[in-house]
Amino acid sequence: MNQATKRVAVVMGSDSDLAVVGDAIKQLRELGIPTLARVISAHRTPEAAAGFAKAAAGDGFGVIIAAAGLAAHLAGAIAANTTLPVIGIPIASGSLGGIDAMLSTAQMPPGVPVAAVGINAARNAGLLAAQILALSDTALSEKLASLRRDMERSVLEKDAKIAEKIAERTAEL
Amino acid sequence: MNQATKRVAVVMGSDSDLAVVGDAIKQLRELGIPTLARVISAHRTPEAAAGFAKAAAGDGFGVIIAAAGLAAHLAGAIAANTTLPVIGIPIASGSLGGIDAMLSTAQMPPGVPVAAVGINAARNAGLLAAQILALSDTALSEKLASLRRDMERSVLEKDAKIAEKIAERTAEL
Amino acid sequence: MNQATKRVAVVMGSDSDLAVVGDAIKQLRELGIPTLARVISAHRTPEAAAGFAKAAAGDGFGVIIAAAGLAAHLAGAIAANTTLPVIGIPIASGSLGGIDAMLSTAQMPPGVPVAAVGINAARNAGLLAAQILALSDTALSEKLASLRRDMERSVLEKDAKIAEKIAERTAEL
Amino acid sequence: MNQATKRVAVVMGSDSDLAVVGDAIKQLRELGIPTLARVISAHRTPEAAAGFAKAAAGDGFGVIIAAAGLAAHLAGAIAANTTLPVIGIPIASGSLGGIDAMLSTAQMPPGVPVAAVGINAARNAGLLAAQILALSDTALSEKLASLRRDMERSVLEKDAKIAEKIAERTAEL
Amino acid sequence: MNQATKRVAVVMGSDSDLAVVGDAIKQLRELGIPTLARVISAHRTPEAAAGFAKAAAGDGFGVIIAAAGLAAHLAGAIAANTTLPVIGIPIASGSLGGIDAMLSTAQMPPGVPVAAVGINAARNAGLLAAQILALSDTALSEKLASLRRDMERSVLEKDAKIAEKIAERTAEL
Amino acid sequence: MNQATKRVAVVMGSDSDLAVVGDAIKQLRELGIPTLARVISAHRTPEAAAGFAKAAAGDGFGVIIAAAGLAAHLAGAIAANTTLPVIGIPIASGSLGGIDAMLSTAQMPPGVPVAAVGINAARNAGLLAAQILALSDTALSEKLASLRRDMERSVLEKDAKIAEKIAERTAEL
Amino acid sequence: MNQATKRVAVVMGSDSDLAVVGDAIKQLRELGIPTLARVISAHRTPEAAAGFAKAAAGDGFGVIIAAAGLAAHLAGAIAANTTLPVIGIPIASGSLGGIDAMLSTAQMPPGVPVAAVGINAARNAGLLAAQILALSDTALSEKLASLRRDMERSVLEKDAKIAEKIAERTAEL
Amino acid sequence: MNQATKRVAVVMGSDSDLAVVGDAIKQLRELGIPTLARVISAHRTPEAAAGFAKAAAGDGFGVIIAAAGLAAHLAGAIAANTTLPVIGIPIASGSLGGIDAMLSTAQMPPGVPVAAVGINAARNAGLLAAQILALSDTALSEKLASLRRDMERSVLEKDAKIAEKIAERTAEL
Repeated sequence: MNQATKRVAVVMGSDSDLAVVGDAIKQLRELGIPTLARVISAHRTPEAAAGFAKAAAGDGFGVIIAAAGLAAHLAGAIAANTTLPVIGIPIASGSLGGIDAMLSTAQMPPGVPVAAVGINAARNAGLLAAQILALSDTALSEKLASLRRDMERSVLEKDAKIAEKIAERTAEL
Repeated sequence: MNQATKRVAVVMGSDSDLAVVGDAIKQLRELGIPTLARVISAHRTPEAAAGFAKAAAGDGFGVIIAAAGLAAHLAGAIAANTTLPVIGIPIASGSLGGIDAMLSTAQMPPGVPVAAVGINAARNAGLLAAQILALSDTALSEKLASLRRDMERSVLEKDAKIAEKIAERTAEL
Repeated sequence: MNQATKRVAVVMGSDSDLAVVGDAIKQLRELGIPTLARVISAHRTPEAAAGFAKAAAGDGFGVIIAAAGLAAHLAGAIAANTTLPVIGIPIASGSLGGIDAMLSTAQMPPGVPVAAVGINAARNAGLLAAQILALSDTALSEKLASLRRDMERSVLEKDAKIAEKIAERTAEL
Repeated sequence: MNQATKRVAVVMGSDSDLAVVGDAIKQLRELGIPTLARVISAHRTPEAAAGFAKAAAGDGFGVIIAAAGLAAHLAGAIAANTTLPVIGIPIASGSLGGIDAMLSTAQMPPGVPVAAVGINAARNAGLLAAQILALSDTALSEKLASLRRDMERSVLEKDAKIAEKIAERTAEL
Repeated sequence: MNQATKRVAVVMGSDSDLAVVGDAIKQLRELGIPTLARVISAHRTPEAAAGFAKAAAGDGFGVIIAAAGLAAHLAGAIAANTTLPVIGIPIASGSLGGIDAMLSTAQMPPGVPVAAVGINAARNAGLLAAQILALSDTALSEKLASLRRDMERSVLEKDAKIAEKIAERTAEL
Repeated sequence: MNQATKRVAVVMGSDSDLAVVGDAIKQLRELGIPTLARVISAHRTPEAAAGFAKAAAGDGFGVIIAAAGLAAHLAGAIAANTTLPVIGIPIASGSLGGIDAMLSTAQMPPGVPVAAVGINAARNAGLLAAQILALSDTALSEKLASLRRDMERSVLEKDAKIAEKIAERTAEL
Repeated sequence: MNQATKRVAVVMGSDSDLAVVGDAIKQLRELGIPTLARVISAHRTPEAAAGFAKAAAGDGFGVIIAAAGLAAHLAGAIAANTTLPVIGIPIASGSLGGIDAMLSTAQMPPGVPVAAVGINAARNAGLLAAQILALSDTALSEKLASLRRDMERSVLEKDAKIAEKIAERTAEL
Repeated sequence: MNQATKRVAVVMGSDSDLAVVGDAIKQLRELGIPTLARVISAHRTPEAAAGFAKAAAGDGFGVIIAAAGLAAHLAGAIAANTTLPVIGIPIASGSLGGIDAMLSTAQMPPGVPVAAVGINAARNAGLLAAQILALSDTALSEKLASLRRDMERSVLEKDAKIAEKIAERTAEL
């Protein structure tokens, strides 16, 4: 199997998470990476979670992104059933700003790692998955490098215009 | 089956947790409640965790106590596979004093509750399990009431001796 | 007395908590569990709190749910006066997102446990109470198992529709 | 009754708290304020706590200091039963450094205040009680002013010697 | 001078704090306690802060309430210059919900106590000041006891009406 | 080169930070300090960040202010490449209120300091930069002293009007 | 180039981090993955950090692990200069238990992801790197699966012996 | 007066802080900067604090470093009385690891900035003071640049030896 054809699964505990998680899917699709979205709950559909994870490598997935809030167990529950790299997105869904989800996602016990990105950082999860797949996909690697150059250029353009922008703001004031 | 004969399972992620969790087992045994200790990991033995939880009611368990540290998923992973009451003990095993385990244990999503006790509060987990079983076990209920009276008496005795104890301390100083 | 007839008390410190706590009452009533709502304050009506708790077992209650915010003492104050299982709901009523209420509810001293659920997790408190009562009520136990299957089915349905939902969102964008 | 003869009660949940709370008693006695130490638990002896608090004003107490750790309810439980000023000392007894006790002590609901001092700040609790009693006790007020001058002098002396102390330390290195 | 005539000063760092602090003034005035509001900043008017504090006892104040947010030094800066009891109200004025102000207010060094109430708990600050003054003012003491009875009655009334209120809410749903 | 002519650079990671950072620029310009705003990202334009910092002293800058949110590396990345004083403004841009940015800005390793001001405290960053430049600019030093007197006067005026303001508020109520 | 031959770099800010980071190196070498350890500081050797990161892909590295404490910028500084996957290990090196390093590592801005593992979780960082490389290395993938089975077996063995271990502990008591 | 001759004051609240603060003094003296150590308490010697700060500029100081723990007001109290740059070192002296001191030091209100360094980061405070003074002292600026080169070289040397060090550690194991 060609690594370049490996897919990314984006798993969320509830379809209401789509408002945040959508950015991961969008980023992956913009990079041309085949991406499958799933709604699976570690606690409400534990068998589906385990079953999905166990089959994931055989089903052609290369990386799994799992997003959850509160006591965010989803990434860990999937990681427990596969040795594919699992990226966890802590969602800020409760009253604590997502620090609960951050700790529940990142503080995994020895032996079963999860790669945590920042709170609600769905786009970064998509990019991280792409960076992993790009290890054996030169074309994807070049797309990522190009994306970085675009980002750099965008910042440089904003830098060039900041004096003007300040002037506008000052005029408003 | 008579409710009074229901057993309590005390599940820990690692046998190194026994230093803390032992107090739950001790408390339950002192109350005459049949108690089984298990080492099961949500992440290293996910099938054992799910299998144990699914079979627990049929195996005669009435309450499950689950202790874990860090991103403490054990109680939640068990709760996802049973409707028996699951009590979670957050263990202070990392560098954050157990606040990670507290949030990972208590902040469960709607539909799958875990009953969290305090950090490292193994004795309280044992007592809570006993209080649950005592709902249909009058003898156990009386033991618990008696235990409360003993605690009360113990505090009252310490109250009676505090002046003396202060005097001793002052003499030391 | 038949265990199945035991009632659940849902106690809140202020009737303004009803916006959150109502979910516990609703969940319990949907399960056919006789439920009594009370407004009792650990600090403004301490005698009512102690009196209620002492009488609760005799009054036919099996589980007490207590909801409070800030320095949330209500569950503990009730637990101090009964050996019935007491479930605490930490309410996010101040400026700290409820972490104060979480710690004040869960971190009980040895000997007097409270079963803490997540912040504002009223529905889970209701379910946990039901799971406790279901230990000696086969019909209730079956209702809970059915509820879990409904939840599972609901997630599976959302999973089936997620691709469509993403397409809609993308069209909007 | 002369305000100057009012006593201070120093209440602790466990005699093991004496290691910290002893500083409050010592400070009060050094100031010549009649001080009674008590061991009373909000959760293990709730009736003693309520009874003590209700009787406190009539028993000649002017201020009550209450020290507790974890979900520190003691000060609040006493405050609920008296309108005497209640000073709470949060004790750092668990794995969270006392932030749980701080929030459980200070974040009281509207209507029933507790005066929280810092974590383990027993000496300050004693001084605060003295400052309250000094409002109607000129001699005590003068003692407190004198204590402040002593503290000031002590700092000034250390200031005078700091260069020397640095020289010593440097020599050691 | 008669203790009963002692005044309370309510000091705030900015007049924008009045939205919160107003509740302290209102509570004190309802209790008939002469109350003076001041705007004094520990950092912008340090001399005014020190001068006010040094003169406060002589100016007939019995208790000083100081409200501040962020690195809330105001209560401490006043406490450093008087042995009158100083009550600190931590204001939730920044992005951290007031935990910064809570710690800056309560964690005073040995020798100079501040009595911290909860975050934004202005009414409690007013009541605490009143409870302190009531030690030598029987009429005020009776007003406070009466207020407690009113609060108790209010909770009992809400308790009596809660079933009805739930019915209304259910009807709305 | 005359110290008084040294410029201040205000660097932000994104032009969306201008809403907060603008206060630093405004404060500096009001004080007559030549100020240059830049948009530079530690992560998206790392070379620009290093290049800017290395050239800053030679380019006539005396102080660099760097504002960033989340894992706020910008101030540190600049400080790593210059020995000019670098002031970091932690921006509250995520769901954690800026505590992440505060720690990422202030907790620098030994050898490479950053001067952190409070979260979103852009005006203070501007003032701190001015205070540093004023060490060798007597006119600027006098402006800063004058600003302090204005602030003091403003507080004193608010103090004089507070009684009136309370009266207005009371009338509204 | 064959993906299986890609190397992992383990970068630490100080050689004193080796006590923690050594577990990552050990894990990688046990799995037969060529691993290079480096001491590079984001703040003390920023050019080395940027230079290393830019050259890493060309130098045959597939994954970079970066460990740092406090305001842990190392992983981010490297990620800014490569599109290789970068794994960050937050080190608990200060007085805050590593929560500062956790937030500084994980909360990266959009566009430049870091894969954070738990605090001090060096072994998991090594495993995560291996899981990433295993995507195109079947032999490594099988080693990882075998490691999981070993872990599972180890837990099952501890489970089998837990009753005995409890008996020993009880005998000791 | 020549800027190069400006002195640095290192002020600590207690001589027990010298164990931490000594590193600032040592760093400054190694750089040849005249440094005066003082013991001054914001709360126990408020007049000394104000008096020192008001006179500091006239007394030839250019920068003031202030170290304090808990509700760390010292830096702010000094900053309130001078427009010299004030650097605050939060000391980890209580049970909260210094997060209280960090927030009390950094979260200053608008108008009166403090430059906070990391918790216990005394050496960085010394370096920051030196960087400020170096703005008008070319020789000092060169010393600082040289120090940076030494740090860089030291890291590079450790980098060169890390393989050897790992080998030693492995041999030990």
